[in-house]
Amino acid sequence: MIIILKKDADKSQVENLKNWLAARNITPHVSEGAHETLIGCVGDVAKIDVGLVQQLSAVESVQRIQEPYKAANRKFHPDDTVVDCSGPKIGGGNFQVIAGPCSVESEEQMVGIAKAVKAAGATLLRGGAFKPRTSPYAFQGLGKKGLELLIEARKETGLPIVTELMAIEHLPLFNDVDVIQIGARNMQNFDLLREVGAQTKKPILLKRGMSATLQELLMSAEYIMASGNPNVMLCERGIRTFETATRNTIDLTVIPVLKRLSHLPVIIDPSHSTGSAKLVEPLAMGATAMGADGLIIEVHNNPPCALCDGAQSQTPEMFAETMKKIANIRPYAWERS
Amino acid sequence: MIIILKKDADKSQVENLKNWLAARNITPHVSEGAHETLIGCVGDVAKIDVGLVQQLSAVESVQRIQEPYKAANRKFHPDDTVVDCSGPKIGGGNFQVIAGPCSVESEEQMVGIAKAVKAAGATLLRGGAFKPRTSPYAFQGLGKKGLELLIEARKETGLPIVTELMAIEHLPLFNDVDVIQIGARNMQNFDLLREVGAQTKKPILLKRGMSATLQELLMSAEYIMASGNPNVMLCERGIRTFETATRNTIDLTVIPVLKRLSHLPVIIDPSHSTGSAKLVEPLAMGATAMGADGLIIEVHNNPPCALCDGAQSQTPEMFAETMKKIANIRPYAWERS
Amino acid sequence: MIIILKKDADKSQVENLKNWLAARNITPHVSEGAHETLIGCVGDVAKIDVGLVQQLSAVESVQRIQEPYKAANRKFHPDDTVVDCSGPKIGGGNFQVIAGPCSVESEEQMVGIAKAVKAAGATLLRGGAFKPRTSPYAFQGLGKKGLELLIEARKETGLPIVTELMAIEHLPLFNDVDVIQIGARNMQNFDLLREVGAQTKKPILLKRGMSATLQELLMSAEYIMASGNPNVMLCERGIRTFETATRNTIDLTVIPVLKRLSHLPVIIDPSHSTGSAKLVEPLAMGATAMGADGLIIEVHNNPPCALCDGAQSQTPEMFAETMKKIANIRPYAWERS
Amino acid sequence: MIIILKKDADKSQVENLKNWLAARNITPHVSEGAHETLIGCVGDVAKIDVGLVQQLSAVESVQRIQEPYKAANRKFHPDDTVVDCSGPKIGGGNFQVIAGPCSVESEEQMVGIAKAVKAAGATLLRGGAFKPRTSPYAFQGLGKKGLELLIEARKETGLPIVTELMAIEHLPLFNDVDVIQIGARNMQNFDLLREVGAQTKKPILLKRGMSATLQELLMSAEYIMASGNPNVMLCERGIRTFETATRNTIDLTVIPVLKRLSHLPVIIDPSHSTGSAKLVEPLAMGATAMGADGLIIEVHNNPPCALCDGAQSQTPEMFAETMKKIANIRPYAWERS
Repeated sequence: MIIILKKDADKSQVENLKNWLAARNITPHVSEGAHETLIGCVGDVAKIDVGLVQQLSAVESVQRIQEPYKAANRKFHPDDTVVDCSGPKIGGGNFQVIAGPCSVESEEQMVGIAKAVKAAGATLLRGGAFKPRTSPYAFQGLGKKGLELLIEARKETGLPIVTELMAIEHLPLFNDVDVIQIGARNMQNFDLLREVGAQTKKPILLKRGMSATLQELLMSAEYIMASGNPNVMLCERGIRTFETATRNTIDLTVIPVLKRLSHLPVIIDPSHSTGSAKLVEPLAMGATAMGADGLIIEVHNNPPCALCDGAQSQTPEMFAETMKKIANIRPYAWERS
Repeated sequence: MIIILKKDADKSQVENLKNWLAARNITPHVSEGAHETLIGCVGDVAKIDVGLVQQLSAVESVQRIQEPYKAANRKFHPDDTVVDCSGPKIGGGNFQVIAGPCSVESEEQMVGIAKAVKAAGATLLRGGAFKPRTSPYAFQGLGKKGLELLIEARKETGLPIVTELMAIEHLPLFNDVDVIQIGARNMQNFDLLREVGAQTKKPILLKRGMSATLQELLMSAEYIMASGNPNVMLCERGIRTFETATRNTIDLTVIPVLKRLSHLPVIIDPSHSTGSAKLVEPLAMGATAMGADGLIIEVHNNPPCALCDGAQSQTPEMFAETMKKIANIRPYAWERS
Repeated sequence: MIIILKKDADKSQVENLKNWLAARNITPHVSEGAHETLIGCVGDVAKIDVGLVQQLSAVESVQRIQEPYKAANRKFHPDDTVVDCSGPKIGGGNFQVIAGPCSVESEEQMVGIAKAVKAAGATLLRGGAFKPRTSPYAFQGLGKKGLELLIEARKETGLPIVTELMAIEHLPLFNDVDVIQIGARNMQNFDLLREVGAQTKKPILLKRGMSATLQELLMSAEYIMASGNPNVMLCERGIRTFETATRNTIDLTVIPVLKRLSHLPVIIDPSHSTGSAKLVEPLAMGATAMGADGLIIEVHNNPPCALCDGAQSQTPEMFAETMKKIANIRPYAWERS
Repeated sequence: MIIILKKDADKSQVENLKNWLAARNITPHVSEGAHETLIGCVGDVAKIDVGLVQQLSAVESVQRIQEPYKAANRKFHPDDTVVDCSGPKIGGGNFQVIAGPCSVESEEQMVGIAKAVKAAGATLLRGGAFKPRTSPYAFQGLGKKGLELLIEARKETGLPIVTELMAIEHLPLFNDVDVIQIGARNMQNFDLLREVGAQTKKPILLKRGMSATLQELLMSAEYIMASGNPNVMLCERGIRTFETATRNTIDLTVIPVLKRLSHLPVIIDPSHSTGSAKLVEPLAMGATAMGADGLIIEVHNNPPCALCDGAQSQTPEMFAETMKKIANIRPYAWERS
């Protein structure tokens, strides 16, 4: 952290500032230049509130030099993290496609879709049992029953299952789940993050909030990791922009950017981001070309009758076609050098 | 809900659509015009997924006519809601100022600030015991001890207390709290909303998410109200924009807009939105002129030493000055006609 | 400008950097600390491309210390600029209301509205002769004929006139105009800015682009001022956000922020920002309370028949009522201390 | 256009509305349902101001059914437009890479880079002679001299040239230019759009404004086309979001979306959008996989010494490597079905 002093800061103000820093175990190194005086701060500056320093009477401006995340930071962990999802591995060159319906609806539906996506090449099965809905009057998911149906579909197909956890009191129900998803709206539900870090070692698929910056996403990953669970995967599912032609705007640049900043795997969700089944294929192809570690795609056997988000669900036929196109591109995918 | 059919929709497609609607207990009323065919939908359309209808083969576009919120809707509850905060009333012409530090730090601090803000005219006391922080390494609040200090400050001053709840498992600790705050990052933590609706009747101060629309804010209020708690107050605390000169951009237009859409009180937070103590006064004055039902302002006896957010805290002296200026403007505040 | 070096930067890289700076007449002052090495840069750093420095091999990060605008900067011109608009003065404690229709339509309309707004207390008259429309098929304004009608209305009422210039080749037609408006969509039409700076000394009302930062707005003012015209007024007319309940979101915080950063007057446009006549009054009241130097309000004698933007136009009766409410608040308006 | 009436609209209000429509040559078709009354509007509704209708006393809400653009609309021109750029064709299956420096600096530089990018496979040459800069103190381009150097580079290599026009009075200097670029900041400089439509038939590369919606981009294309020039290419160069890790956020979803809405070619600019040379390659690969009709990439022989935007320029070596990776992916690119 570097503090630039005001030109007209007097000695007593500067003395106060140095004492203030010292009280926080920060050692100040003063460099007086012709035009400005700088204070380099040595110590555990991660705990200092930058906004607060900025208001001190002697201070012109402040700059952090280091990222505030450590466990998630590529600088301190140069090798890619590889997450083992009960068999399939994600990251470090391992690419997987997670597929399935938005909501679990019935055994017939889940087993049917699971078989279809497996046949097309998916290696993990997704499905929502607890659903975050903006309206209290909308279908909220089958809950515990939904988890049972997912497990049934895994028995039939062998595909590990991925499903969303919305409240920590439901965690005991997730014992048989393979990968726990934290949704975009809970990305900064810090109590939930801390607990999935402390209470489990299962892989966590952490979705980026709709207006979150990448640093905020990485800080949320840091909450989980700092609490004891290193198995975090980052998922881009579209951000909010002014564009209305799609539901959200997927930010594919996050793939190379996150891979530079962090060692965690990056998964792209082309279904939620667009809200349109027809756009899933080109986005999945783009994400693959840009080096994503995985995709999570909604597939439904009968989209017009889906209880939620049918509009963005591919049919099994569309999904199979998309998987072929992805396979063509995957050998030429971008790799971080 | 009105469905506009594609020009080239054939009879069987339209028949399918009508059956699809009928299966959902919606009665379709078809109007064939020279240039387009419309279907007016009668029934409980709130449960229909608009995105899904939009994907059906015969459909050109769909439009909702009614807002998806009911309990929070001014149309169905024309009179202003007045929320009783253990004495002070908010809404329906009643204006209150809530003040206090960002975080509870010590008894001396809390009691000192409580006395100062009371002397300046504040009628409720705020203070954070559980703090949402983007970094797991930052000060997370005093927790239970913080709640005890708040209660101590209430004993000394008589000011009812407002404090944030971050996880439903902490609710039992909030028995002696007067007003429960739900923070911006939890605005769409639907499980938490449902439970503060079902498990308590205490007033809820619901903060708008940093990128939430007003409809989303009202839907979150609806979650609380639909679960049984009608005592909801809406709070604008600044939205994220491209501007970097302030931390967030406060959207004061929400005051007249929310008052037209809803009967719930509207509170403005000029402290978090700007991140700068110097901007609190002009924003508080603007919000008052525009007819806010209340303000929530951070005050700290020693801002440079505050454990969090000192940068945006007024001193008691600044706060007293601001209260005088607000009092000048309040008689001329805008009223909904 | 301060450059922070990478920890592993070697001597030759640092030597290269110093030479690179020297070639641009920048004198580097190196401060070696225990944990980082900084280079303070002395010279005309405004001409240095920060992004470029950031890419140099030895550089960890770069920070500008000074704002890139000079003529518009309060630091170098501590006193408020007062702009003389052919009689009425704006800024430095002088407050004016500009009113009139979105588009000039006919002599009867213009003279009628001009008399009405003058009677209500407006001191300048607005009206669009050249109209920026998103559709090439929409009404584009009366052009030269519109300017003539504005001048006619001025003759009848004595109100100076404000109207928009869209292309520099039209400037000769604006000889009799009192204040030239540059619209939000042209805020970064740099050729136009440069020419209204070089070819005229008339006051320029510069509207903020819909997604522009305040620094960008000030840089656009700087273009005009650096070309020779110091008579610039800054106008907030609403920014684009995710909110759909209003057309744009007005950012009233710009009033105290711009007054701290710059000495130029700040005008608020509550009509375009909301797109709704009913919201103009509360916004005008809020802007007044927060210390705006002026307001620009759309008024139309028959809004439903206006050729453009009738939806946001007040009637003369509404405007007169709003003027009274503003007058109540104005004595208590916030002032920069 | 469909108008939904208020439930409590009385007969005289509805009669007024019908007269208001009739006065604008719109024939209203009324459909009275059990729960709502609709008016389908037949006629040239493109000229009606929706916001205005929405304010009429009888009106609950209004919905446009048709897009407001015609010439640019895929519905009316189902076949892809193929633009001939003095030899190389873009669109309808033809893919081209435009490359060159941000700014033209010298003959040596231009000819050197032109030869390098040609050798790597680029088929058009870019270079800025007139530069839009946010600061009046920054390098503004070589102007006329820059155009001459571009033409010189074309002579040496045969590559057609693409360069930006900022003011219509410069058009006579562009006689020898092959493709005219309209920059993001001028996307809604309607006078400039109209004139490049009316005064030339040269291909226009129209860049999307930093916060523009796709409909606004298409309306700007419509301005050019309605004025007489059908040779428009749409270019995504990144939009403004809250992310700070990159300069802008490129929205690659525009490729499939624009191709559905319009028949015009879609070009992606991975250089300006990221502001970082290292991100150009993965973005170029993603854009290619998603079916872009072309790319425009900044290449500089000595990025650290570039007079502007060196930070985002690839070296000729990096560019050659990127071209190879693009060539691998191109055979598998997404195609609209």
